[in-house]
Amino acid sequence: MWIKTVSLIPPSLQDNTADAERLIKAIKSHLRTNTVDIDLYLLRKLPVLLRKWKYNVRCIVLKDRSRWILSGIINATDTIPIAGVAVDLGTTKVVLRIIDLSTNQILAEHTFDNPQMAIGPDILTRIHYSNQDEGLKKINRLIIDGLNQMIEKLCSSCNIKPDNIYAVSVAGNTAMTHLFMGLNPYWIIREPYIPVVNKPDLIKAQELGINVNPLARVIIFPNVGSYFGGDLIAGIFFSGIDKKEDVSILIDVGTNAEVLLGNKHWLVACAGAAGPALEGSVTRMGMLAGPGAIDRIKFDPVTFKIKVHTIGNKPPRGICGSGLIDLAACFFLYGIIDIRGKFVSSKRSGNRLKDKDGMKYYIVVPASESETGSDLIISQADIDSLIISKAAMYTILETITSSVGMSLKDLSTFYVAGTFGSYINPNSAISIGMLPDLPIDSYKSLGNSSLGGATMAIISNDCLDKIDAIRDKITYLELNVNQEFMNRFSAAKFLPHTDTSLFPSVKPR
Amino acid sequence: MWIKTVSLIPPSLQDNTADAERLIKAIKSHLRTNTVDIDLYLLRKLPVLLRKWKYNVRCIVLKDRSRWILSGIINATDTIPIAGVAVDLGTTKVVLRIIDLSTNQILAEHTFDNPQMAIGPDILTRIHYSNQDEGLKKINRLIIDGLNQMIEKLCSSCNIKPDNIYAVSVAGNTAMTHLFMGLNPYWIIREPYIPVVNKPDLIKAQELGINVNPLARVIIFPNVGSYFGGDLIAGIFFSGIDKKEDVSILIDVGTNAEVLLGNKHWLVACAGAAGPALEGSVTRMGMLAGPGAIDRIKFDPVTFKIKVHTIGNKPPRGICGSGLIDLAACFFLYGIIDIRGKFVSSKRSGNRLKDKDGMKYYIVVPASESETGSDLIISQADIDSLIISKAAMYTILETITSSVGMSLKDLSTFYVAGTFGSYINPNSAISIGMLPDLPIDSYKSLGNSSLGGATMAIISNDCLDKIDAIRDKITYLELNVNQEFMNRFSAAKFLPHTDTSLFPSVKPR
Repeated sequence: MWIKTVSLIPPSLQDNTADAERLIKAIKSHLRTNTVDIDLYLLRKLPVLLRKWKYNVRCIVLKDRSRWILSGIINATDTIPIAGVAVDLGTTKVVLRIIDLSTNQILAEHTFDNPQMAIGPDILTRIHYSNQDEGLKKINRLIIDGLNQMIEKLCSSCNIKPDNIYAVSVAGNTAMTHLFMGLNPYWIIREPYIPVVNKPDLIKAQELGINVNPLARVIIFPNVGSYFGGDLIAGIFFSGIDKKEDVSILIDVGTNAEVLLGNKHWLVACAGAAGPALEGSVTRMGMLAGPGAIDRIKFDPVTFKIKVHTIGNKPPRGICGSGLIDLAACFFLYGIIDIRGKFVSSKRSGNRLKDKDGMKYYIVVPASESETGSDLIISQADIDSLIISKAAMYTILETITSSVGMSLKDLSTFYVAGTFGSYINPNSAISIGMLPDLPIDSYKSLGNSSLGGATMAIISNDCLDKIDAIRDKITYLELNVNQEFMNRFSAAKFLPHTDTSLFPSVKPR
Repeated sequence: MWIKTVSLIPPSLQDNTADAERLIKAIKSHLRTNTVDIDLYLLRKLPVLLRKWKYNVRCIVLKDRSRWILSGIINATDTIPIAGVAVDLGTTKVVLRIIDLSTNQILAEHTFDNPQMAIGPDILTRIHYSNQDEGLKKINRLIIDGLNQMIEKLCSSCNIKPDNIYAVSVAGNTAMTHLFMGLNPYWIIREPYIPVVNKPDLIKAQELGINVNPLARVIIFPNVGSYFGGDLIAGIFFSGIDKKEDVSILIDVGTNAEVLLGNKHWLVACAGAAGPALEGSVTRMGMLAGPGAIDRIKFDPVTFKIKVHTIGNKPPRGICGSGLIDLAACFFLYGIIDIRGKFVSSKRSGNRLKDKDGMKYYIVVPASESETGSDLIISQADIDSLIISKAAMYTILETITSSVGMSLKDLSTFYVAGTFGSYINPNSAISIGMLPDLPIDSYKSLGNSSLGGATMAIISNDCLDKIDAIRDKITYLELNVNQEFMNRFSAAKFLPHTDTSLFPSVKPR
């Protein structure tokens, strides 16, 4: 968004240039561009506004791929805020942030459940639903209405009007983005997995049914394909990997693990199933990071007693990905599980390790201390599942790095995006061989990088150029599950790894 | 409009480009451009259509100033017509023409009264009306509704649907164009005479309320200023003056006379009041060219009897501009008026010349032969008014030509636009010294050049580039009514002129 006060020389008999061209000429000379378009809606109001405001106006201009668009003018002496909305359009959660575009300050932020959860928690259910009669319309309406309600609430919380919002940027995965635009995602999940669009143009908020300023434009992050969406492009944009000379890696762990490797010259991406155990959807006590979720675990080195920390310091209700990784790391380092991840009966596990129908399980929190009133347990099956996830993750990291002839040790920075990145203890992840044994300070948590990228997009003058440059630079690596991949995977199924020389820091622990 | 069948290679696992980008890439390579935009409306339908039509589609693409816009796709094997509508948006009459854009054939054409005539016949009344409460909305609605009705009728007359229309081009004067777009023309008629816009962008027909294909775009001819409108730019475009090495002149006579002089290197334009007597609004028997209007007059060289020809060979109702010029020429050549244009009592005028209250008048058609049942007469005042008009016209022509250091004799072609041009007899106009004494074959009638230009615009691939080039090349000459102008004007008030050497061909007649 480009915002600037422009002072025009009023028309005279010597200069009878029309109102629109007079204003646009001034903007063009500031922007050094040939094309600034103006909507009919604004054109109709222009002559009165220019004269009322004595030819001194603040101009709000947004750049599409081929042209700048004048999205609004306000009186130069007026202090009306000019705001933008950044949206992280998650499958489960949607995060909305209002930004004052004159100061780039965050005015308000709110997270809410994606209203499409009512159709189904997972993407597949929603895609199938979209293909029913009116399904697409209904599911599109759910998210649009949800956003409108939330925008209105957030606006009033920070004392602005939806009409003060001139830009909306949306970062989401390919399916969520399609549903948001009312595009049928049917072909996204069917071979050969084709999105309707990779790089949407700016769309008028009005056309999408978003109730903000009628001239506001919506920036929708482009995707690389059905399985590498705009949320990840936003994350890369936010991380700045594409600006650095050194090679960094970025991982975003959700239902899938998406990985990006590169620097200012090149970017390689891949995605693979590595996350389920980490997102709380496999283990019996698994849950998403939220109040009452065990996010950190320590063992007392003397008593071997377990110490849990929960989000919000609430009584424990379950365990989230980072807690599970901590737990597995403690189990391994204290010999409660062996290098194959199997429970070992020993003094250290005390009376916490049980057996039921031949399946071993471990009581992490006894019923008396849990919020649910039942034991919170981890079974051998849960550990097995985690080990598969961690092995898959490490294999993907190894595969993508070796695809460019590099080794994991060559990475300068290891970015971890999302909630997972905010809670994970890299030491624990290294201990179980899920993440490579890099110096701890090379691990950087990005937080909600999708929202971060969406925020940068509305602040930036020419975000589409920058975002397109990132998108177009990405080489997508199809993960072939061939013999080499399987060999790597098998080697990674041990704790921390068959080749312990890869994890020199784990041994001393 | 660019129309082409494009055959795409269907997507595969090896090429997972999205539907939109797959199609746009093909169009881009045909057009050698970087930017082809696609509307959300079409994007939503695209995946189903591409698959249904097996990736063979005819694409309809229109060029805006900075980008091409995909306005529609149809099945490559389908024979649905792809049509356009050209509109000559006159203050009095509107002419609509439907063109098959695959063959460039005219499918239908119709002229109707501008429905804004209900507000007032002249531009000023309408501009004042627009400034009242809701006035602009109402007057805009009148023309939009009128066009919609006529488009529907014309479509059914040639067996197409309004949905088959993908482009509309509109040529009109600056005020009519403003009212068409719903822009307030208030400032057009007030010093310093500023239009709201000079060069409108392509506008979606839907936004303007025009009921054609929802993706159709409207091309609106740009203006040079409040008094040199898009109708004239369309006329220049149609004439091709701007493509020739030789210098030509173009005149368009309506309420004002607009004049353009130039060649491929430069264009000079001016406008002045010269027309009233020629457009039927001053003389008592004056009327617009139409059924029953006397458009041609001859005198029998022996009996001096008058022979009138009417449009449609209907009984005479009045006289239009070309008839009036013929009449004045005959009067002058047969000595019924003198070189000052005053009636001379002589045998030749017979009993047709009368006198009432000291004002002489001449019975052109006796009551017995007229359609109205009254004498059709021309008074001395009518002749005087014609002489002022013709003198003004000649003075404007002399002034604009001498402004570039040329003489009227240097002109290779003299284009006469509009109805006036279609009916006028250049010999008569030369006889009274209204038009310069050039060889008769240098006079070319352009017919409805505004409609002609509008037609060329929708047929052309990149009309805005061409039209902008014309518009931007025009230097507008403000006619200063100074001593030199008045001297020229006084000299031109004689028949044919004070300086008879300027009209060598008139003497022998």
